[in-house]
Amino acid sequence: MLLSHDPARAFMPYPSVEVPHAETGPLSGLSFAVKDLFDVAGYPTGAGSPQMLAMSGLKTRTAPVVRALLNAGARFVGKTITDELAFSMSGKNAHFGTPVNGRAPDRIPGGSSSGSASAVSSGLCDFALGTDTGGSVRAPASHCGLFGIRPTHGRVSLEGCHDLAPSFDTCGYFARDGETFLRVGEVLLGADSQALAVRPRLMLAGDAFGLLDGSVREALAPAVRKVEALLGPAEAIDVANEGFTALYWAMRYIQSREAWIVDGPMIERLKPPLGPGVADRFAFAQDVTDRQVAEAQVIRKAFRERFKALLGPDRILVLPTMPDVAPLLTETDEALNDYRNKALNLQCLSVLSGLPQVSLPLATKDGAPLGLSLIGPAGSDLSLVALASGIVEG
Amino acid sequence: MLLSHDPARAFMPYPSVEVPHAETGPLSGLSFAVKDLFDVAGYPTGAGSPQMLAMSGLKTRTAPVVRALLNAGARFVGKTITDELAFSMSGKNAHFGTPVNGRAPDRIPGGSSSGSASAVSSGLCDFALGTDTGGSVRAPASHCGLFGIRPTHGRVSLEGCHDLAPSFDTCGYFARDGETFLRVGEVLLGADSQALAVRPRLMLAGDAFGLLDGSVREALAPAVRKVEALLGPAEAIDVANEGFTALYWAMRYIQSREAWIVDGPMIERLKPPLGPGVADRFAFAQDVTDRQVAEAQVIRKAFRERFKALLGPDRILVLPTMPDVAPLLTETDEALNDYRNKALNLQCLSVLSGLPQVSLPLATKDGAPLGLSLIGPAGSDLSLVALASGIVEG
Repeated sequence: MLLSHDPARAFMPYPSVEVPHAETGPLSGLSFAVKDLFDVAGYPTGAGSPQMLAMSGLKTRTAPVVRALLNAGARFVGKTITDELAFSMSGKNAHFGTPVNGRAPDRIPGGSSSGSASAVSSGLCDFALGTDTGGSVRAPASHCGLFGIRPTHGRVSLEGCHDLAPSFDTCGYFARDGETFLRVGEVLLGADSQALAVRPRLMLAGDAFGLLDGSVREALAPAVRKVEALLGPAEAIDVANEGFTALYWAMRYIQSREAWIVDGPMIERLKPPLGPGVADRFAFAQDVTDRQVAEAQVIRKAFRERFKALLGPDRILVLPTMPDVAPLLTETDEALNDYRNKALNLQCLSVLSGLPQVSLPLATKDGAPLGLSLIGPAGSDLSLVALASGIVEG
Repeated sequence: MLLSHDPARAFMPYPSVEVPHAETGPLSGLSFAVKDLFDVAGYPTGAGSPQMLAMSGLKTRTAPVVRALLNAGARFVGKTITDELAFSMSGKNAHFGTPVNGRAPDRIPGGSSSGSASAVSSGLCDFALGTDTGGSVRAPASHCGLFGIRPTHGRVSLEGCHDLAPSFDTCGYFARDGETFLRVGEVLLGADSQALAVRPRLMLAGDAFGLLDGSVREALAPAVRKVEALLGPAEAIDVANEGFTALYWAMRYIQSREAWIVDGPMIERLKPPLGPGVADRFAFAQDVTDRQVAEAQVIRKAFRERFKALLGPDRILVLPTMPDVAPLLTETDEALNDYRNKALNLQCLSVLSGLPQVSLPLATKDGAPLGLSLIGPAGSDLSLVALASGIVEG
């Protein structure tokens, strides 16, 4: 039943264990993979960490989100590689390897939901679960040419999932085509608490686009026009009145503190040889002060209130998902870290606000995929997914 | 029952599973650890590799050598970290960390049986199983100030143990004191097929000592005198008529070819990010030619016949276990690789001949332990252990 052949090296090489699914249901005929942060009965949960894998044992329960997919008739094909403790955006795991970007094999897949994006972009399954704390679904979706969603914070259950930074963590997913993206959304997201208007007004995050190189803006222009063709001309606004740097640091301090609370005890006890970048980020996390966190929370609260007020059932935002196409596999760790920091400026809007964001595979540059994103109001997830599906396929 | 606290970070952090042992027996009251190459029912076998750990599942059978210890009343306390796929001599595992050398915490423990030597030298158990293919018991025994044995090839069962290079692989063990070393040997080694004379003649491997720096020779001199005090003055002979370089390469070619046969299929399929040194050695192994292996086998056969004829029940050899005390943890990977290559010159005698070698914790230098070795004829293992115990404790 499981994949015996994994040319993308997207999957953890666990022994195959049968995971039953409903014979019929809305997802019948679809196969899916699960980021190795979620528990699946009969499997360990490695969280991209040799230590976590060793400590795991075989889980006896399956995370509710996975059960929901199985109950809807989807077929589980395996657990996918994640960046170490999900604390990276590159998709390069120093212990389990780098899954292949199915759309740009000479480039990083992006992470931390690297294996899930790799499996879907390589055609090894129809859709895959990931998590997005600071960009871990949106980055690989953009890099691998996939639909991806970071849902409204709290909308999809993270029970039975290893935390990274709980006040930011969300469960998202990837799909290659709009129809599958929508079918899965209907099961996973459920009905919207705040459905979008049929034709919401489009606002364009001018300051976010302003962070991009000209060549990237150019590459995204036709994609923006495609959205405008459906929703009418976008109104350019600035969204980061505090400045992206302030938002970036607010996100980093809070995420780092929460990550240290989650993983610090294991790291202090076992002193694992963490991979490049991951080691630095946990070292940083250990040193974050209470004052830094408190100041970050003030910024977060002010931004969230203001940003939420910008959006509504009739007002959504278009913005770049990532600063560029995926870096080449040969890039240095330093270059990847610089790229990550740029990307966090774009990622932080939905992270700090808790609002849903979808990335649409609408552009390419240098022959590699590049995503365009939409952010909607809290609880508009399924409408956003339907809109994204319609824009790309319509 | 298992260790909940492991300050030496010697153990794999597996969930504790009960492993029953006989209530009474010759090893009653002793606790032991097992290198994570041997299967123990209820545990995975990780072999120092994240990929092997992922593929392992929980084993349903216990390796016969472990069963023999349990049946003799010894208490299992856990599985210990090994170098990645056991193909290293440093004890630095890029994925699972470096166990602490209990006798010289600022120095490497040596490997590949690093965690076993760490656990015993840190007092976390009374003895521990390791394997020795090219020095993996003798090196950490010397570095950590322990008794250690590489038995006659084939003497102790390796069933249920991950191979490295089968025609060289042996199962050995460590102990802190001579009494425990002997008690365990009586169970694990069984009666000698070729017991040593009560007072065998001592030969000294002059050319092996000639490989050492003067300061190391000086540090070992009192240890040699201690052996001579019991057995009479040693006669210096040359043992490597072919030259150590020829023996070194013979061992490397054969070990590399066999290691590639064992681990190559996994490495080619999963392309794991192997740690420093390990990656180089497997890359080397992949390129070894049939002709190199065939020439190596000729050298091995000639050396083995000649070397075996040198030794007998009444003639044993004394030689340095390692070129020096353990390198500092801060040494570069390059320096560690140079040290390893030097060490292999000393290790290759018993590897190529299949003869038993014990390392005795008889010396120190710069405040760190340094072992002295004895090699006896095939099948004299228990006599050698008894002799080593008597020399150190007597």
